Amino acid sequence: MNPLEIPEIVIKRLPLYLRTLELMADEGQTVTSSQELGGRLGISSTQIRKDLSYFGEFGKQGTGYDIRFLRGQLRGILQVDRPWKVALIGVGDVGHALLRFIGFEDRGFSIAAIFDKDPQKVGRRVDKLTVLDVATLHEVIRRRGIRMAIIAVPACEAQGVADALLGAGVGAILTYAPTLLRLPPHMRVSYLDPVVGLQSMTYYLSPSRP
Amino acid sequence: MNPLEIPEIVIKRLPLYLRTLELMADEGQTVTSSQELGGRLGISSTQIRKDLSYFGEFGKQGTGYDIRFLRGQLRGILQVDRPWKVALIGVGDVGHALLRFIGFEDRGFSIAAIFDKDPQKVGRRVDKLTVLDVATLHEVIRRRGIRMAIIAVPACEAQGVADALLGAGVGAILTYAPTLLRLPPHMRVSYLDPVVGLQSMTYYLSPSRP
Repeated sequence: MNPLEIPEIVIKRLPLYLRTLELMADEGQTVTSSQELGGRLGISSTQIRKDLSYFGEFGKQGTGYDIRFLRGQLRGILQVDRPWKVALIGVGDVGHALLRFIGFEDRGFSIAAIFDKDPQKVGRRVDKLTVLDVATLHEVIRRRGIRMAIIAVPACEAQGVADALLGAGVGAILTYAPTLLRLPPHMRVSYLDPVVGLQSMTYYLSPSRP
Repeated sequence: MNPLEIPEIVIKRLPLYLRTLELMADEGQTVTSSQELGGRLGISSTQIRKDLSYFGEFGKQGTGYDIRFLRGQLRGILQVDRPWKVALIGVGDVGHALLRFIGFEDRGFSIAAIFDKDPQKVGRRVDKLTVLDVATLHEVIRRRGIRMAIIAVPACEAQGVADALLGAGVGAILTYAPTLLRLPPHMRVSYLDPVVGLQSMTYYLSPSRP
């Protein structure tokens, strides 16, 4: 099947399956089922089987899924069985939290360059990295072949940064800035907006609902 | 229609529609279409019309949607036309970034209580709030009738905090901790995991794909 024919919503669920399998493996579990995976994620087992069937046969009727095998398959499909270099733009609170976040390296990503526009921050070292001037973004990203970036700047600066990333050849952006980015369709964008997360739950919380 | 019969995936898209409508309204736009909304969000116009049809008729064939009207309707459906008190647990980098985030108040939420376990932080003021000892979490949340919480503590502490929130009567948790929480099905949980966001895009980035 042409990879572009698989619905995007299916692709977006695969990282959730992968995360759950990784946690199960960490806990020493070796086999799981679509029922168990679904129960942990709030997704029906039918949906999980249907999603996985786009990519092949991963489980056996009655015996379930071998966790290590399925984890490896999903890593391959999502292409996180290789390390991706990621640029981080904005070394404020969110940026610092991300640099301290230990979950990137063993899940397919490596923060390879960090940028800020604040002269007080440029040149400072944060862990193994030196904060670079955002004015050098284009050159550094091009030279190092970086294809992904995380935007952690204020909302009013996010579009300018996104435009610069587009020009430098970045193909996918994860943004924490609470603003919609205007970018051509070939640029992948993923939003981490806490309000969207909260608003998707209030629907179920009303005292007037059963 | 019974509100619980509407697929959860539909409910999860409504905040994205609402955010886009809010941005359009901020920019002075008054009317939009399912095509335009879809184009901005990477969702098909058919999907948008189908999602909205669960809740009624919001647009007219040929004239599109009145942005202020549809925004008001979605706020009502999602119940963010009233303020929800939210507790924040963990006043580290992520917690500080959230406290500085200005997008909560006018979108239905108010950070009403902040907690940490670090004696160095307890009692300190951050903006209008005083950091409370996490040992008082149960009592404060009960007394103030708080139903929602954001977890911004390290992964190893997240389950303990989640259990305490459950016991205190919280019904929905947004968590930044990179670990799967084990909670009963009636507790709503939303994960903000940067790796899941990145992994949902690498699929499309391969140099071997067209």
